[in-house]
Amino acid sequence: MASSAIETDGPEILDLEKNRQAEKAQWVLNAPEPPSLWRELMDSARETVLPHGKRFPYLKDKDGLFKTVISVLQTMFPIFSWCRHYNATKLRNDLLAGLTLASLCIPQSIGYATLAKLDPQYGLYTSVIPPLIYAVMGTSRDIAIGPVAVVSLLMSSMVPKLEDPEANPIAYRNLVLTTTFFAGIFQAAFGLFRLGFLVDFLSHAAIVGFVSGAAIVIGLQQMKGLLGIAHFTNKTDVISVMQAIWRSVHHYWNPHNFILGCSFLSFIILTRFVGKRNRKLFWLPATAPLISVVLSTLLVYLTRADKHGEATAVGRSFASIKGYRINGNQEMVAFGFMNILGSFTSCYVATGSFSRSAVNFSAGCETAMSNIVMAITVIISLELFTRLLYFTPIAVLSAIILSALPGLVDPHEAYYIWKVDKLDFLVCIGAFFGVLLASVEIGLLAAVIISFVKIIIISIRPGTEELGRLPGTDIFCDVNQYPMAVKNSKALIIRVKSGLLCFANANFVKEKIMKWATEEEENDSKGKRTVQVVILDMSNLMNIDMSGIASLLELQSNLASGGMELAITNPKWQVIHKLRLANFATKMGGRVFLTVGEAVDACLGAKMAAV
Amino acid sequence: MASSAIETDGPEILDLEKNRQAEKAQWVLNAPEPPSLWRELMDSARETVLPHGKRFPYLKDKDGLFKTVISVLQTMFPIFSWCRHYNATKLRNDLLAGLTLASLCIPQSIGYATLAKLDPQYGLYTSVIPPLIYAVMGTSRDIAIGPVAVVSLLMSSMVPKLEDPEANPIAYRNLVLTTTFFAGIFQAAFGLFRLGFLVDFLSHAAIVGFVSGAAIVIGLQQMKGLLGIAHFTNKTDVISVMQAIWRSVHHYWNPHNFILGCSFLSFIILTRFVGKRNRKLFWLPATAPLISVVLSTLLVYLTRADKHGEATAVGRSFASIKGYRINGNQEMVAFGFMNILGSFTSCYVATGSFSRSAVNFSAGCETAMSNIVMAITVIISLELFTRLLYFTPIAVLSAIILSALPGLVDPHEAYYIWKVDKLDFLVCIGAFFGVLLASVEIGLLAAVIISFVKIIIISIRPGTEELGRLPGTDIFCDVNQYPMAVKNSKALIIRVKSGLLCFANANFVKEKIMKWATEEEENDSKGKRTVQVVILDMSNLMNIDMSGIASLLELQSNLASGGMELAITNPKWQVIHKLRLANFATKMGGRVFLTVGEAVDACLGAKMAAV
Repeated sequence: MASSAIETDGPEILDLEKNRQAEKAQWVLNAPEPPSLWRELMDSARETVLPHGKRFPYLKDKDGLFKTVISVLQTMFPIFSWCRHYNATKLRNDLLAGLTLASLCIPQSIGYATLAKLDPQYGLYTSVIPPLIYAVMGTSRDIAIGPVAVVSLLMSSMVPKLEDPEANPIAYRNLVLTTTFFAGIFQAAFGLFRLGFLVDFLSHAAIVGFVSGAAIVIGLQQMKGLLGIAHFTNKTDVISVMQAIWRSVHHYWNPHNFILGCSFLSFIILTRFVGKRNRKLFWLPATAPLISVVLSTLLVYLTRADKHGEATAVGRSFASIKGYRINGNQEMVAFGFMNILGSFTSCYVATGSFSRSAVNFSAGCETAMSNIVMAITVIISLELFTRLLYFTPIAVLSAIILSALPGLVDPHEAYYIWKVDKLDFLVCIGAFFGVLLASVEIGLLAAVIISFVKIIIISIRPGTEELGRLPGTDIFCDVNQYPMAVKNSKALIIRVKSGLLCFANANFVKEKIMKWATEEEENDSKGKRTVQVVILDMSNLMNIDMSGIASLLELQSNLASGGMELAITNPKWQVIHKLRLANFATKMGGRVFLTVGEAVDACLGAKMAAV
Repeated sequence: MASSAIETDGPEILDLEKNRQAEKAQWVLNAPEPPSLWRELMDSARETVLPHGKRFPYLKDKDGLFKTVISVLQTMFPIFSWCRHYNATKLRNDLLAGLTLASLCIPQSIGYATLAKLDPQYGLYTSVIPPLIYAVMGTSRDIAIGPVAVVSLLMSSMVPKLEDPEANPIAYRNLVLTTTFFAGIFQAAFGLFRLGFLVDFLSHAAIVGFVSGAAIVIGLQQMKGLLGIAHFTNKTDVISVMQAIWRSVHHYWNPHNFILGCSFLSFIILTRFVGKRNRKLFWLPATAPLISVVLSTLLVYLTRADKHGEATAVGRSFASIKGYRINGNQEMVAFGFMNILGSFTSCYVATGSFSRSAVNFSAGCETAMSNIVMAITVIISLELFTRLLYFTPIAVLSAIILSALPGLVDPHEAYYIWKVDKLDFLVCIGAFFGVLLASVEIGLLAAVIISFVKIIIISIRPGTEELGRLPGTDIFCDVNQYPMAVKNSKALIIRVKSGLLCFANANFVKEKIMKWATEEEENDSKGKRTVQVVILDMSNLMNIDMSGIASLLELQSNLASGGMELAITNPKWQVIHKLRLANFATKMGGRVFLTVGEAVDACLGAKMAAV
């Protein structure tokens, strides 16, 4: 595509080339002004809030008022879109999916409610109202709404700091409902103001580490139910919990409870293997928890072995964050409203459950109707069986939660992250050990802080790379990345390996380039090259600050005192604009070029002519 | 330089082109592995600590032991280098410069010591020992060592929190000396371990704002001396100080003091104007403060108007940070040792004074000998006049400090920063108002935090730009920066406007590209272009993380569902390495190219062939 045959061309072509080069350099220097900071802020705010440019295109039509209303309603309530095409086949599929979902949802909800230190029925309430509201307002077909493990853990680790759930259960419950209300307000506000992107600030690696750590924390909490320990620690870190378990095992624990729990745990895990072997038996692992609850409750009811009380449970939840991302801001609005309205009807925070969504999908759901079916099933079972919950042994709830844990700890993903990105792995284990050794909040904080420190480190690392010409082209590339690239014998071509030349790295970059230029100079005696020109390729640099400009000026004067010239190539919009404002371009004596090739030809050509 | 004449070439040349393109794509895909994170860490640590590669080149010589010792001594004590070429002419110049320096240094030192809430003689001590040590170990000829204003302000705002200077002056003084000792330890350690770059973390804009704010704070503190107020606030923020002044003006202030201070202030400012008009009278503004001190002390001594006590003073200091930068790590070591040894001899923190260095330079100093001359002069004056300091009116010291303030507030530089970089200006005013309205520490903290938040914002802003071909070339550039660039009718060529594609911006960038691609598609009915290929130019991207890779995969599948192809060009070393580890390159179906031009030709050529 490119010809580097300039050396063999005649003088006329050379002149022509020179004119074209001069023209191109003018293109660089006379770029229009970039939008001002204020304009950029406004633009990005508008793009964030109104990602589709015009949100209500029908408003322009004069007689389209009815259409507008319909359109707004359809945007706010997607049920109006899909219910018009609803038919009997879809209903049958949704019915099957909804029933399967309910059979998994009921025991999990009870477990999660006890994990959140609430009475079991609150978990069931949370599986009724929010799914109904989501079915009306949500956009996803597959997602299953209800209480989830990590949110329950967050509740039980945060709210008890303000109100003791054992001393004052009603005040505690009210505080949880208030928390749910405000969570809903924030979700709805984020959705309405299109701030869903804020959720992105928790990176994938952080979520993997955080969820794995939370799963282990939740699993350890289950030891309380499984071993039948009455007095347990309120802390969630591994060391406190292990100490509490160790102490209990030496004093008071309930072997019957333990055997009961382990038996049902084995049963649930067994059905899962069967379900994996035979895809048609997908309902077996999905209903196994319900079967366990029913069987164990009957067992306790019939034998009158009244060992009731609290319990704890777990599932998969943080994938809900993926849910927001996939379904955008309308999902956020739906989640917000379902939690606001939920908090008025004794529900605590509900969100999309990853494990139940997977069951919903494999059970063949067609629309959000499956959530409605599930909610109705839960209402009926609430009417019929709530009083029986009294006899459900906590050990079985613990077993149900424990059976869901292995899916949350994801060593394969962690290994993949380690393989691809070592710093991301650091974020991942930071979140993991933060949750495990300190608390949920510290785990999240550690993940966010490490993520942003990583951004700063990558952005300001003062790396530089030398460029060489790829054989047969006019393309200049990093000589380390492309070993076939040929260095120029008289020009040192350098590119900064970061997107910013700023106070934190400019001085370092300057010194590195100086060192490089002078070392090459010193090595001259041993038959190496003499650097006459240093060409700084600025194509990487998104931005520069006052310190960066000052460093460039120092670099130029330092090089000049060593008899070398500095040329810059391909500065980006913001960079050339700032350099122009700082009068750098004129101070450079016009040695600003569009491409490295032109810079090499122009600078070395001028040197030749001078000799 | 480049020919885009491929359309008119014959089929054989086309084949040849294709082979070359395939070869170049292989160059991209088969780049060698970049150095591991561990290796990079080690390399950058070594480069930081040993910037010149081999620090003691003579060590290799077997019989060069003597040379080695000499070399190490010359590195540690530059005085051995310059004193061998010292002669009578240089001595005469240094003598003149040193005496001029001393005449400015004595009143300033007294003032700064009182600003630091120490007795005046400690300022004079600090002008003796540190300059002598610097003269032996330092590398700069012009710098004048001694106490400076901003460091004195820092002392008086930090140390009194631990020990009350009025209730317990001896304990306070000991604490200041201990602080000096540890400041020296840190400076020496930073210098020896080549960590001088840490000083760069305070950006130029932050320093401008901080010093301007500190100057105003110092100026307001002088009102105490100028108005003769006995009971003043210990806080440094503007509001508290203004309140204290307001209260004092209504109750008790000393008009004689005020008139005395203002007269000498006018005198000093007048001499400065004269000195500026007539360059030969440079000694007049430099000695005016000493003349003021001597005259006013005599006045008080003769009239027995014993209004002695504390005082306060100011100069210029933070330029010392520039000093470190210019002179590197050896300067840091010299500063460290002079403060360590200084703290043993009743000196508080000394550093390079910008105002006195300027005087030293204009007085024609030749070597660091001028500092020695100054130190000896100060010793003699300490011997002779210390007892007279008793009679020096604080109002005159305040006047001396006030006269130095206007040079510290730099509205021109602030305007220049505003003009070139609005975000840097934010850093500047953040530091300024932080010092002014809160405290010195908060001002520094505000500057550092705003600086790093700025780096994060610039690094993760999810900007994208469309590229077009520059006429007559194979170069693709931002169509906004280069309005003459021509967009391709079938390929949407996009470049990310940040150096990182990471969790914080990847999702946004993906959605922006999707929106762009589909909008172009929708506009097709109105006679606009149809996008068949989206080419993502990755030449900006220094790095990518797991979320970035996931977003690219989602982008590809989203585009594919809209019948569009995704191609990527020119991925950098780290990026292609991670994409390869994540198997992205194979998932892309080989649509990875070296240049945008090749991607356009290959993708659209393939599309053509398919039709």
